[in-house]
Amino acid sequence: MKKSFFKIFGVSAILATVASQSIAQDAPALVPTDSVFILNSLLFLVGGFLVFWMAAGFTMLEAGLVRSKNVTTQLTKNMGLFSLAAIFYYLIGYNVMYPLGTWMYDGVLSGIWGVAILEAVGVTADGADDYGYASTGSDFFFQLMFCAATASIVSGALAERIKLWPFLVFTIILTALIYPIQASWKWGGGFLDGMGFLDFAGSTVVHSVGGWAALMGAIILGPRIGKYAKDGKVVPIPGSNLAIATLGTFILWMGWFGFNGGSQLAMGSVGDVADISRIFSNTNAAAAGGAVAALLLTQFLYKKPDLTMVLNGALAGLVSITAEPLTPSLGAATLIGAVGGLIVVFTVPMLDKFKIDDVVGAIPVHLFAGIWGTMVVPATNGDASYVTQFISIIIVGVFVIVTSGIVWTILKSTMGIRVGEEEEVAGLDTSELGMEAYPEFSKG
Amino acid sequence: MKKSFFKIFGVSAILATVASQSIAQDAPALVPTDSVFILNSLLFLVGGFLVFWMAAGFTMLEAGLVRSKNVTTQLTKNMGLFSLAAIFYYLIGYNVMYPLGTWMYDGVLSGIWGVAILEAVGVTADGADDYGYASTGSDFFFQLMFCAATASIVSGALAERIKLWPFLVFTIILTALIYPIQASWKWGGGFLDGMGFLDFAGSTVVHSVGGWAALMGAIILGPRIGKYAKDGKVVPIPGSNLAIATLGTFILWMGWFGFNGGSQLAMGSVGDVADISRIFSNTNAAAAGGAVAALLLTQFLYKKPDLTMVLNGALAGLVSITAEPLTPSLGAATLIGAVGGLIVVFTVPMLDKFKIDDVVGAIPVHLFAGIWGTMVVPATNGDASYVTQFISIIIVGVFVIVTSGIVWTILKSTMGIRVGEEEEVAGLDTSELGMEAYPEFSKG
Amino acid sequence: MKKSFFKIFGVSAILATVASQSIAQDAPALVPTDSVFILNSLLFLVGGFLVFWMAAGFTMLEAGLVRSKNVTTQLTKNMGLFSLAAIFYYLIGYNVMYPLGTWMYDGVLSGIWGVAILEAVGVTADGADDYGYASTGSDFFFQLMFCAATASIVSGALAERIKLWPFLVFTIILTALIYPIQASWKWGGGFLDGMGFLDFAGSTVVHSVGGWAALMGAIILGPRIGKYAKDGKVVPIPGSNLAIATLGTFILWMGWFGFNGGSQLAMGSVGDVADISRIFSNTNAAAAGGAVAALLLTQFLYKKPDLTMVLNGALAGLVSITAEPLTPSLGAATLIGAVGGLIVVFTVPMLDKFKIDDVVGAIPVHLFAGIWGTMVVPATNGDASYVTQFISIIIVGVFVIVTSGIVWTILKSTMGIRVGEEEEVAGLDTSELGMEAYPEFSKG
Repeated sequence: MKKSFFKIFGVSAILATVASQSIAQDAPALVPTDSVFILNSLLFLVGGFLVFWMAAGFTMLEAGLVRSKNVTTQLTKNMGLFSLAAIFYYLIGYNVMYPLGTWMYDGVLSGIWGVAILEAVGVTADGADDYGYASTGSDFFFQLMFCAATASIVSGALAERIKLWPFLVFTIILTALIYPIQASWKWGGGFLDGMGFLDFAGSTVVHSVGGWAALMGAIILGPRIGKYAKDGKVVPIPGSNLAIATLGTFILWMGWFGFNGGSQLAMGSVGDVADISRIFSNTNAAAAGGAVAALLLTQFLYKKPDLTMVLNGALAGLVSITAEPLTPSLGAATLIGAVGGLIVVFTVPMLDKFKIDDVVGAIPVHLFAGIWGTMVVPATNGDASYVTQFISIIIVGVFVIVTSGIVWTILKSTMGIRVGEEEEVAGLDTSELGMEAYPEFSKG
Repeated sequence: MKKSFFKIFGVSAILATVASQSIAQDAPALVPTDSVFILNSLLFLVGGFLVFWMAAGFTMLEAGLVRSKNVTTQLTKNMGLFSLAAIFYYLIGYNVMYPLGTWMYDGVLSGIWGVAILEAVGVTADGADDYGYASTGSDFFFQLMFCAATASIVSGALAERIKLWPFLVFTIILTALIYPIQASWKWGGGFLDGMGFLDFAGSTVVHSVGGWAALMGAIILGPRIGKYAKDGKVVPIPGSNLAIATLGTFILWMGWFGFNGGSQLAMGSVGDVADISRIFSNTNAAAAGGAVAALLLTQFLYKKPDLTMVLNGALAGLVSITAEPLTPSLGAATLIGAVGGLIVVFTVPMLDKFKIDDVVGAIPVHLFAGIWGTMVVPATNGDASYVTQFISIIIVGVFVIVTSGIVWTILKSTMGIRVGEEEEVAGLDTSELGMEAYPEFSKG
Repeated sequence: MKKSFFKIFGVSAILATVASQSIAQDAPALVPTDSVFILNSLLFLVGGFLVFWMAAGFTMLEAGLVRSKNVTTQLTKNMGLFSLAAIFYYLIGYNVMYPLGTWMYDGVLSGIWGVAILEAVGVTADGADDYGYASTGSDFFFQLMFCAATASIVSGALAERIKLWPFLVFTIILTALIYPIQASWKWGGGFLDGMGFLDFAGSTVVHSVGGWAALMGAIILGPRIGKYAKDGKVVPIPGSNLAIATLGTFILWMGWFGFNGGSQLAMGSVGDVADISRIFSNTNAAAAGGAVAALLLTQFLYKKPDLTMVLNGALAGLVSITAEPLTPSLGAATLIGAVGGLIVVFTVPMLDKFKIDDVVGAIPVHLFAGIWGTMVVPATNGDASYVTQFISIIIVGVFVIVTSGIVWTILKSTMGIRVGEEEEVAGLDTSELGMEAYPEFSKG
């Protein structure tokens, strides 16, 4: 009933209607400052639980794309990495990422190594850390989920041969130090931000960082046994459960509305909520563009559409739009996503040429599409510069390559990062955990 | 602590409490116009991501109810249809659905064929298309998800024998033209709306439209090989994974809170949010009613409860309440949903009598329960008329039967819509995609 | 862009920025009373659909942890129990839980046996039951989900041998009477609340109640055939699908943000939204603590991490923080959750010693961690007393033990609650439903 009413008569009629419902003549136009605080915090909470949900998306995607003999291990790794990220971002990462903010909040130089401290219970406007903006608790909750997402990216690429514990130790270093340090350069108000680097929700700060760490891990770890035949041929290793891999993709797609929309960081004004609406629409458009591009390209190249490419195409579309989900038009967002989808289809075989074995396609999706997304920002946002974007990608890339390379190398030479050959062939679920994911289903 | 406090002392005590917390004596009662815009847009965004989530629900439901040899195809179809719906609703459908609105927004007659255009970045109250209502971006996001849901309904019914590409071409026509044209008659302020037709969230506009298109497809496509034995017997073809089919049902149920609740289209007043609360409660009650009715009826008829009927019963309950989720009492909503559940149990065998092979039960759920839900509106809403409801159902039905019939027929005589007999027996995953969903699990 | 801007310059800069965007000099500080009503209702709606989602989480967790021959039955039970909970909480439970509130809302003593009645359609501020607080519809929706969650807890423990219908009859009694009666003692403003018992979101009121009812059921029902060998050894019976069990855990984790966050019961002030933010962060921290504790302890005890313990550890962490998710610091929340995780790892074998067969670990997770969470409240909340917490746990426990014991015993001696031996060995899906969940996958 209402739907049509609002729509037919357009602006003026709507104003009249709404007025008759709830806005008396003396209703004020402006949002009270308390409401701004509430709405901004609410954005972080809703955005935050949506990004949390991406942890489940990564888990299902990865569990679906590995062989059944490694599923339990992959599930355990994802539960473990998210939980450790939550703890170490609290213990170290949050304050490393926002040292200036911490200092200002406390009124004294509390140092960068303290744990995250939330506002007091039942805080009043006067006592809020950031009255006029949002609650510290909601900010912590939201930022934590981005840190955890970075760690999730790594786990898929290294599946089916990495040991559980060294992987989790790497997660600790990544979420306590590597991610927060580089994130502080942009989102903590550091030098990349000062240079004018633009990365709205983290094509570079989150996705490429996860991608570089995964790339270094994949190189140092080496490919799975049997992936590259002695004659140089690439042996496809199909995933065990494409239904849950597709579910994982839908979960990630859903969570991305919070990832990009929440990164508007404010919902207390007409302009902010209109921007969030643009971001939701553009994020969806880019995912659709990526999926369709991969669908068409695999049909064209291989004469058969490839579902795993379509899934990764949608994800690459999402990563591509993440550096700037606000300024593109819907059409531009669709095209930016579509190029992301094409990148995936073209670069998955390229990695195989270098015998870099990325089990789920995380490096093409998060690193390559992340670079693309970051580089295309100036095309729709006049404040961005191609040079600055490029330099920033390089700086972040070199930092993560070096630090994660060092950590992987140390882990390799101390704990060892790879299971034994027999264990790998038997499957990590038997050797590492002694627990199968699908114990009753006969393996073909 | 608070829970009891608020509850014990009732209204007056609550007012006192809240006052002491946040409302000083000079706090105004009325919601500022900026806040109304924010809250309405927020409703569309939250409602929209919940309806988006239904795409995952349809996908899991369908993937669970087809045989494992067709799962990858079903997953690919669903990823493809959602993505194409997003693109073509943007390119064509949105403006076809709201031509008047478009004209008024732009200030000139932009025509009905333009692409959807969102508000500018960082728009102010003065510059918003619809200040006093909600952001265009949030409206587009929300409406797009309804269009995509319509397409999702079709895919389940035609599973296990339709070719991928003709199906996707049909999706394009459906989401660019068929759905938006008829939706404009009601929600775009067209003649059905003028006649007084009531369809709150789309029992007819969305669900029956998907249902009619599926029915025409199922008739023109014909039944699966082996579904109807030569002696006339119906051969049950069990789904391959009832766990994910159940998950899909829960996802759809969850998404329906956004589908119906968001269709209130406003959250900026006491009355609107109270109405949304009624809608949430009624939507849940109807789903519960449908599930329990199907549970009891299958126990009674077959001496054993039938899970797939229970799942479809819940969904039919949801479809039944969608035409009017606001005016019924909780009890009436439960009963309206329960009748929907009964309809499913009775009409699934009826379709089989006509040898119309609907793989997932989409036609009983979305078409038959959709008609029921639309026809029962006058029972609880005095503004509705049985005659108008009936005539509107017929008009929409004839339109979709004719247009989708023409499209299916053209597709059949050009691209062909059905895979070959050998391909169907082998499974579409092998023949169409060359990729199995569960490659390691031996088939019994 | 904004992210860094807000963060670098701290409080004063942020105030300036926001002001330039949306807060003119004459913007009021305080939230209007209408907005408070809207925001509080919105909290219940968002919290409510998140807690609804937990029904899917329980379903997937349980479907993943039973053997494939019992999956369809487990799915049917969960669809049935949720739907029946919705109907009987509406018919009886809601008014039993809030008799005083009902009386005050109606202005007359409507009695405690009436059905739940929502506000009228399009209610105005003057006509709202609880203007200044929230809509009745949103409260009903939210409270219903808690009742249903209590019933979900029971179903997992009793899986693989209980008959469908007696289980559903128990659900009716539990959701119409047992849960609401004891909940009224605390949340309906009854004597436990008067005594000063604190249970923020229901470690005792929800989780221990489900746990006690499950415990009584498990004792009266007896263990599964083959679970305890004649020589006294415990025979592990692995779950059939750990991927969906993990998905279920993530779903529950996500839903818990609504469970605990929504239990703040108000979002219309700076203090309330800051508290909700604390609750979200603490809830997440406790889950992470529980998961990591179980991961480390199973590695230490068994030399191999145990995924099902990690999943239950996360859930136990969530249950542990539920009695008081607001007052702990992030560190305290992590530790409270971690102890919950340890409790699960230690008490699962303990139950086995008593030959109490809890298929999914519901009793350790919901009962034992629920007691722990309730008892630890005074450690962070000065208003709580160890004695009162202890007495309240005992009172609720005795009530549920006695009432559920009586109901189970009556059901056993009338309908019978356990399937026959042959049926149990063959699997309930064949004997009770005649429908397999995974009919095509050969069982090993």
